[in-house]
Amino acid sequence: MSRTIAELAELVGGTVRGDGSLCIDSVATLAGAGEGQISFLANPRYRKQLDSSRASAVIIAPAEARNWDGNAIIVADPYLAYAKIATILSERTRHPSGIHPHASVNSAAEIHSSAYIGSHVVVEEGAVIGADACIGPGCVIGRHVEIGADSTLVANVTINEGCQLGERALIHPGVVIGSDGFGLANDEGRWVKVPQLGRVILGKDVEVGANTTIDRGAIEDTIIEDGVKLDNLIQVAHNVHIGENTAIAACTGIAGSTRIGKNCAIAGGVGILGHLEIVDGVTVTAMSLVTRSIKRPGVYSSGTPLEENRHWHRNYARFKQLDDMARRIKELEKIVAAKGS
Amino acid sequence: MSRTIAELAELVGGTVRGDGSLCIDSVATLAGAGEGQISFLANPRYRKQLDSSRASAVIIAPAEARNWDGNAIIVADPYLAYAKIATILSERTRHPSGIHPHASVNSAAEIHSSAYIGSHVVVEEGAVIGADACIGPGCVIGRHVEIGADSTLVANVTINEGCQLGERALIHPGVVIGSDGFGLANDEGRWVKVPQLGRVILGKDVEVGANTTIDRGAIEDTIIEDGVKLDNLIQVAHNVHIGENTAIAACTGIAGSTRIGKNCAIAGGVGILGHLEIVDGVTVTAMSLVTRSIKRPGVYSSGTPLEENRHWHRNYARFKQLDDMARRIKELEKIVAAKGS
Amino acid sequence: MSRTIAELAELVGGTVRGDGSLCIDSVATLAGAGEGQISFLANPRYRKQLDSSRASAVIIAPAEARNWDGNAIIVADPYLAYAKIATILSERTRHPSGIHPHASVNSAAEIHSSAYIGSHVVVEEGAVIGADACIGPGCVIGRHVEIGADSTLVANVTINEGCQLGERALIHPGVVIGSDGFGLANDEGRWVKVPQLGRVILGKDVEVGANTTIDRGAIEDTIIEDGVKLDNLIQVAHNVHIGENTAIAACTGIAGSTRIGKNCAIAGGVGILGHLEIVDGVTVTAMSLVTRSIKRPGVYSSGTPLEENRHWHRNYARFKQLDDMARRIKELEKIVAAKGS
Repeated sequence: MSRTIAELAELVGGTVRGDGSLCIDSVATLAGAGEGQISFLANPRYRKQLDSSRASAVIIAPAEARNWDGNAIIVADPYLAYAKIATILSERTRHPSGIHPHASVNSAAEIHSSAYIGSHVVVEEGAVIGADACIGPGCVIGRHVEIGADSTLVANVTINEGCQLGERALIHPGVVIGSDGFGLANDEGRWVKVPQLGRVILGKDVEVGANTTIDRGAIEDTIIEDGVKLDNLIQVAHNVHIGENTAIAACTGIAGSTRIGKNCAIAGGVGILGHLEIVDGVTVTAMSLVTRSIKRPGVYSSGTPLEENRHWHRNYARFKQLDDMARRIKELEKIVAAKGS
Repeated sequence: MSRTIAELAELVGGTVRGDGSLCIDSVATLAGAGEGQISFLANPRYRKQLDSSRASAVIIAPAEARNWDGNAIIVADPYLAYAKIATILSERTRHPSGIHPHASVNSAAEIHSSAYIGSHVVVEEGAVIGADACIGPGCVIGRHVEIGADSTLVANVTINEGCQLGERALIHPGVVIGSDGFGLANDEGRWVKVPQLGRVILGKDVEVGANTTIDRGAIEDTIIEDGVKLDNLIQVAHNVHIGENTAIAACTGIAGSTRIGKNCAIAGGVGILGHLEIVDGVTVTAMSLVTRSIKRPGVYSSGTPLEENRHWHRNYARFKQLDDMARRIKELEKIVAAKGS
Repeated sequence: MSRTIAELAELVGGTVRGDGSLCIDSVATLAGAGEGQISFLANPRYRKQLDSSRASAVIIAPAEARNWDGNAIIVADPYLAYAKIATILSERTRHPSGIHPHASVNSAAEIHSSAYIGSHVVVEEGAVIGADACIGPGCVIGRHVEIGADSTLVANVTINEGCQLGERALIHPGVVIGSDGFGLANDEGRWVKVPQLGRVILGKDVEVGANTTIDRGAIEDTIIEDGVKLDNLIQVAHNVHIGENTAIAACTGIAGSTRIGKNCAIAGGVGILGHLEIVDGVTVTAMSLVTRSIKRPGVYSSGTPLEENRHWHRNYARFKQLDDMARRIKELEKIVAAKGS
C-alpha cells in the first residue's frame, strides 16, 4: 500500500519538506531504513542515527528538523504520526469471510455473513459474532457470548458463557475471558465454591495481550471500558472495573472489586489489592504494590533499589531494625537537646 | 431451580424470619436485587445498602439482623450460606454425555460412558476419563492421564502424559498441568536438559485458575493435595507439594521442591523460593518474597509502602545508606554515652 | 533403554567403582531407588540419604565417594552426569511422522516428510516445518513461520506470522510467540495502535516454558539467541534481545528493547525495565526490579526481608521516614561534633 510523502503528511496533519511526490512503501528504523522507506525520530536518544540514516523520508518534530537534511514530514508528535503512517503502509487484505469446514458452530449461533470463523473454532449455542469479525484458529466462544463487529480473536482464545466484547476488540492468543473468579467461603477449613454468576463486558476498541486472564463477576459484571489496553499475562479478578483508555503493562495483577479510573497508566508487575478505588489519571510505576485507594491523580511507587548483592544484603538486613533505628534517633535527639539546654 | 426461603434456610442451617413460603429464583447484590431474589450481608461496608435494598430476602448474621426489616435467613456465616444457596439456585442441567464427532480419541483410551468429550479435544493412548467428567473444547489429554469422576476441564486445557486429577477437579481454560520442570545442568556454559520424569498428582476437589501452570516432578511427583484452590496465572514448579485446603491467589510463583502445609493462605503476586518448608496455617500477604522456611503458623509479609513518586524516590535512594545509617546511630550513641559519663 | 554401569560411566567420562557390568534401567532419588536404578548425590543436604539408599549405583563426586559403599560412577559434576544418564535411560520411541487427519494444513505450507503434525493443528500458508519436527495437538502455526528440524511444540502453542524457531526448539503448552508488542501512541487521551511489524527469531536449542509469551518486534525483530532457556509464565516484550545460554526463571517480565547478555541467570519474578543493557554473566535474584543498565558481571538484588506481619508493619511504616531519619542523623552528628570541639 505505497503512498507519496505528501499523502502521508496530509494523513497526519504534517508539513512536507523536500520531495513530496516520492513514493514510500514501508516503515523502518533510522538505522535500518533504505530506499522507499520512511523512519521517525521520537526518542532523542536515537538523534545521532539521523547522520547515517538512508531513509527516503523521516517523520520529525519541528525542533529536531534542523538535524536532518533529507525529505521530511514535520509534525508535532512524530510517534503518533508514525503509528498512523505505519498502519496505512502495513494494511493487508482481510481474511475472507465464511466458516472453516473444521470449525464446530452450533446451529443456534448467529454468525454475520461477513465474519470469518477459523479452523477448529468452537462457537456454542446462542453466541453472536458481528460483522467482519475474525475468529482465529482454536478459539472457543461459549454460549451466548457476543463478539462486536470488526473484532479479531487471533488464535486459541477462550471466551466463556455470556461475556460481551465491543466493536474492534483485538484479543491476542491464549487470552481467557470469563473464567470463574476466585470466590471461596470457608466451611471449617474446607473451601466451598462461591458460584461466579456475573459476566465480563468489554467496551469498544479494547486490546487484550497474550495469555491475559479476565475473570467473570461474582454476581454483577467485570467491566473493561472503551479504549482500555491490556498487555500480556495480566490478571483481572472478578468485579474489577477499568475506566476508559487506561493502559496496563504486562504481569500486573488486580484483585477483586477494585475500580481503576480513566486514563491511568499502570506499569508492569504491579499488584493492586481488592476493593480499592483509583481515580482517573493515576500512574503506578513498575512492580509497585497498591495497598490503599488512590484519591488524587499523580505518580505512585513502592519498592527498593537494585544493588550489587553484597551491598544490598547489608541494607536488607537492616530493614528489620528500621523501627528500632527511628526510636534510637528520637532518643538521641532528646539526650542531645537536654544537654544543650 | 427456585426454592422457598424455608427450604434455603434448612439447607444452610439458618433461621427464617418473615415469610418462609416465599419463592426465591436467584441471587443478587443488595443494591441490585429485586422481586424473587435473595441477597446477603457479609462485609459490614455494605450495611448501608440494606436501607434501600429491594431483595425479597437477605442472608444475615444475628448481630446485623436488626438492621433489616424484611424476610431474612439468619445464620452465623452469611457468606458461607450465600455460597451454598447460590450453588443451588444457579444449578444447571449437565452437559450431555458422549464424544463430540470432532474430538480425536485414541482407541486405547477409556472414556466412561457418562463422560462428555467436547469438540476438538484430543485424548491420547491409555488415558482414563471418569464418570460424569466433562472435557471441554480444545483440551489435550496426554497418554495415560487419569481424570477423576465429576471433573470439569473448561476449555483449551493441556494435561501432559501420566498426570492424575482426582474427583471433582475444576480446571479453567488455558491451564497446563505436567509441563516439564525447569531442570538444567550446566556443561561449560551450555545448558543440558535434565529429563523431567515425575508426574503431577492432584487430589480431590482441586480447582485451578485460568492459565496457571503446574510442572511435573523431576524424578518424583509434584503433589497438590485435596481441596487446594489455585487462582489464575500461578506457577507451581517441579516437586512442589501443596497441603490440603491451601488457597493461593493469582500471579504467585512457587519454586522447585518447596513444601507448603495445609490450610495456608498465600496472597497474590507472592514469590516462594525453592527447597523451603512452610508449616500448616501460614498466611503470606501480597507480593511478599519468602526466602526461608516458615516454621510457625502466622502472618508473614515483606515489601515497602506505596508513596507519591517524589516522596518515595527520596526514601528509596536512602535505602542504599541503611547499613551506614545504622552504624552512625551506634557511633552517636557511643559518643553521647561517653560524654554523659 | 537399559545400560550397564560401565557404559553409563563412559558416556559421562566417569570412573566405575564396583560392578560395572550391572544393568541399570532407570533413575530414581536416593530415597526412592531400588534394584536396577541409579541415583545421584549433587546437593550435600541429601548426603544422609546415602546411608539407607537401595540404589544399584550412585553418581557421586570424588570428595563424597567415601560416604557410599556401593556401586558408583565417580565424576566431577554428578548433576550434569545425572542429566546425561537420565536422558539416555528415559529415551522413548519418537512420534511417527505424518499429518493427523484432523489437522488443517494449508496446501502452500512445506511439511518435511519426517515431521509429525498432530490433531487439530493449523499450519497456515507458507509455513515451513523442518525434519523430525513434532507439532503437538492444538498448535497454530501462522503464515510463513519456520520451525527448525528436531523441534517439538508440545500442545496448544501459537506461533504467529513470520516467526522463526531454530533447530531443536522445545516449546511447552500454551506458549505464544509473535503476539503484538504493547505499542501505543497517545492521541489526546485515546490510544492509537502502533503496528507491530517485526518478528520473533529463536536460535537453536531454545526451550520455552508453559504459557510464556514472546512479543514480535515493533519494526525490527525480537531475538532469542542459541541455548536460551525460559521457564513458565515469562513475558518477553517487543525488541528484547536475550544472549546465548541465558536462563530465566518463571514469572519474570522483560520490558521492550532491553538487551540481556550471554550466560546470565535471571531468577523468578524479576522485573526488568525497557531500553536497558545487561552485560554477559549477570545474575539477578528473585523478585528484584532492574531499573538501570548493568555494566559489570555480578549478582544483583533488590527487595526487603520477610518478617512476621506485626514486626514487618512497624518497619514498613518507618520506610516513609527514611529520608527524614537520614537528615536527622546528619544533624545529630553536627551537633555532637560541635559540642565535642
